[in-house]
Amino acid sequence: MTITLDHIGIAVNDLPQVKKLFEILGLKASGTEHVADQGVQVHFLKPATATTNIELLQVEDPEGTVAKFIAKRGPGVHHLSFRVETGKLDSLSKELLQAGYKLIYPSPKIGAHQMRINFIHPSTTGGLLIEIMEASSK
Amino acid sequence: MTITLDHIGIAVNDLPQVKKLFEILGLKASGTEHVADQGVQVHFLKPATATTNIELLQVEDPEGTVAKFIAKRGPGVHHLSFRVETGKLDSLSKELLQAGYKLIYPSPKIGAHQMRINFIHPSTTGGLLIEIMEASSK
Repeated sequence: MTITLDHIGIAVNDLPQVKKLFEILGLKASGTEHVADQGVQVHFLKPATATTNIELLQVEDPEGTVAKFIAKRGPGVHHLSFRVETGKLDSLSKELLQAGYKLIYPSPKIGAHQMRINFIHPSTTGGLLIEIMEASSK
Repeated sequence: MTITLDHIGIAVNDLPQVKKLFEILGLKASGTEHVADQGVQVHFLKPATATTNIELLQVEDPEGTVAKFIAKRGPGVHHLSFRVETGKLDSLSKELLQAGYKLIYPSPKIGAHQMRINFIHPSTTGGLLIEIMEASSK
């Protein structure tokens, strides 16, 4: 199974300030998308020389999960996202469950970029929110 | 200037739990080092297929900066680290200062792996702690 760190999701209060900073650090804006499920607009930033993208999460729904995260912990890194090739998400999920990690959804949901996603519960990861995902098969 | 996302630093309370998780996600332990300055033992994890490493920060000094971070925000992502080629850190620092971002140290310090490091102050980045670094020239 090939697993890559696809992106780092960052909850932001001041989008222009953070976006400009990542642009100085060599990343380029590569798209914007609404994710109603989490009550956010997401802004993707792509690095020139590595595979890990940055995803800025801008709150739209003050009752959404990301708004609650910011209220509790302040803005900052919200999640790390690991991607497997299509067809492997279920076996990775099984491996994690067998090793004692909990998943947030009983079965994967569809997230940004039409990916099948799930999250490892922070109560079993020492406070980290980790997304696991694969591209939907069509 | 070539800038890469070198690693993600994660403050941990339960090292074995988090280390095992990243091993399931395909990373391999690649070394351990004491960083007295931050009061931590750092554990590096290297991915098979990407350039971004994971650095687990395990508190040794309860008065250190990482211990204070965990006390305030809980365990989780502590910093993102961007690396430039040797000789470029000063010009990147200048560019950041000119754009209104503050740096924590007036001049770079030596961190883990003998890198010259500095941090962008979270008060100017929307709460993110971002390390910038270059290998020392010898």
